[in-house]
Amino acid sequence: MDNTIDRVKNYLLSLQDNICNSLEGEEPEARFIEDLWQRAEGGGGRTRVISNGQVFEQGGVNFSHVSGFQLPPSATAKRPELANREFEAMGVSLVMHPNNPYVPTVHANIRFLIAKKAGESDIWWFGGGFDLTPYYPFKEDVIHWHQTALAACQPFGDEVYPTYKKWCDEYFYLKHRDETRGAGGLFFDDLNEWGFEPCFAFMQSVGDHFLKAYLPIVQQRKNTVYGERERDFQLYRRGRYVEFNLVFDRGTLFGLQSGGRTESILMSMPPAAIWRYNWHPETGTPEAVLYEEYLKPQNWLGI
Amino acid sequence: MDNTIDRVKNYLLSLQDNICNSLEGEEPEARFIEDLWQRAEGGGGRTRVISNGQVFEQGGVNFSHVSGFQLPPSATAKRPELANREFEAMGVSLVMHPNNPYVPTVHANIRFLIAKKAGESDIWWFGGGFDLTPYYPFKEDVIHWHQTALAACQPFGDEVYPTYKKWCDEYFYLKHRDETRGAGGLFFDDLNEWGFEPCFAFMQSVGDHFLKAYLPIVQQRKNTVYGERERDFQLYRRGRYVEFNLVFDRGTLFGLQSGGRTESILMSMPPAAIWRYNWHPETGTPEAVLYEEYLKPQNWLGI
Repeated sequence: MDNTIDRVKNYLLSLQDNICNSLEGEEPEARFIEDLWQRAEGGGGRTRVISNGQVFEQGGVNFSHVSGFQLPPSATAKRPELANREFEAMGVSLVMHPNNPYVPTVHANIRFLIAKKAGESDIWWFGGGFDLTPYYPFKEDVIHWHQTALAACQPFGDEVYPTYKKWCDEYFYLKHRDETRGAGGLFFDDLNEWGFEPCFAFMQSVGDHFLKAYLPIVQQRKNTVYGERERDFQLYRRGRYVEFNLVFDRGTLFGLQSGGRTESILMSMPPAAIWRYNWHPETGTPEAVLYEEYLKPQNWLGI
Repeated sequence: MDNTIDRVKNYLLSLQDNICNSLEGEEPEARFIEDLWQRAEGGGGRTRVISNGQVFEQGGVNFSHVSGFQLPPSATAKRPELANREFEAMGVSLVMHPNNPYVPTVHANIRFLIAKKAGESDIWWFGGGFDLTPYYPFKEDVIHWHQTALAACQPFGDEVYPTYKKWCDEYFYLKHRDETRGAGGLFFDDLNEWGFEPCFAFMQSVGDHFLKAYLPIVQQRKNTVYGERERDFQLYRRGRYVEFNLVFDRGTLFGLQSGGRTESILMSMPPAAIWRYNWHPETGTPEAVLYEEYLKPQNWLGI
């Protein structure tokens, strides 16, 4: 698989470059800082973080390529046949927290995993996706987001978008709140049934469509005027982002359980968040619209 | 066990009253609000929350008494013999987040559980403890805290304090940070080997010593002058509180997994928290002292 691994790795590294360059293009001054790191058990990563930007309050775009002696429980809970296998994992993962409450928080991740056992064939799979977490959503933004997700999937079959859109709604779900994390997007995992080349092409398609999906929304909304009320609600909703990432997110748990680099994993945390006891939006407010129309699965494209 | 349950319940309800009254005594105006709630599967609670006080920025003192058809995984992971048992659980749990960074955040909990199965004897146990999370600690406060913990344990044997102090250090530990949550205190669980009356008496002793341990620290430090630097560090460290509660805390997971009332469980979240990539205190600062001397287990009483 060595040539394969290099091809995937080269794609991921260039995707990280492209995304960082494009996001920096929205910033007059702030730039990503880069930390290269290594991991005792094997592998390392290239973490890039931006802080205190004019558009992005905080965010990170991480590349990592790690190996380990045993897949952690978060990866084998639903696939017990993988327990006790060595693994190699590489991926790009990003979360961006904008200042402006009219610009959604965004997450994207693509990853390639190989589980190995002496005397047996390697088991490989791809996973990833992207999902949007608006505070004050615009319907046309969310439709554009899903249309771009559809475009990423379309060459791979008509059923791909609906399947991975549904999986995204189910995965980014806060059971204890009965809310989705945001307005969804795509989520896929354990993908290998199409054979390597189509699967790799699909992962690249998802990676390549991220900027097309997100940048227009940033550009359209980054100068929207907002006040204390909108900032306060953004901080409150970011508390849900924290709850999801620490209680449910498989990638976060995989990273923390596999002895990953904590500061790189937790760059997904918002720069600031608030919690308020038993708060609910008043009926008829823009905040209530988020709950009623966006934090539950919707068929955005009518397909 | 009906009379027993009433006795434990009466103690817990009066402890909740005493603690709320005493904490309100530190506040010129802010008062706890009370929410009574019921749970579909059985039982309910009395949640009391205080917000925007002069001393306490946010906090809650909860009583709950719930029953369910099956103990959740967080309760049975280490005791598989309890899986598939019905349960009854009651307890008081509190977290207070003060405004002043010189006043530590505090947590206390005492609980009584009964696991039931038709045709078999009930299995009951007590658990609980209290632990202190300072931002800018004073050594004499932490020693007073531990001396009061020792006093709570002393009547039950010389080994009780060292055993439960060590368990507290081990339990309130953020593995991914290699830090304890704070300066420790007491933690106990699965306690029934002394027989019911001594165990119940010990739980009451822990409950009765909480205010003795915490109030003098609040009174001594609540008027200490602080500025932006101290507030900022407090908000940053509160991020660790969030990480512990959502990733590790058995009580939080028990509550969320057993379909508990989310707003009552997550009243333990701080009112506000911040995250900053790869931040470390500079050597020789008061912030570095917290990490070096307090966020690792110490033998505070020299015993």
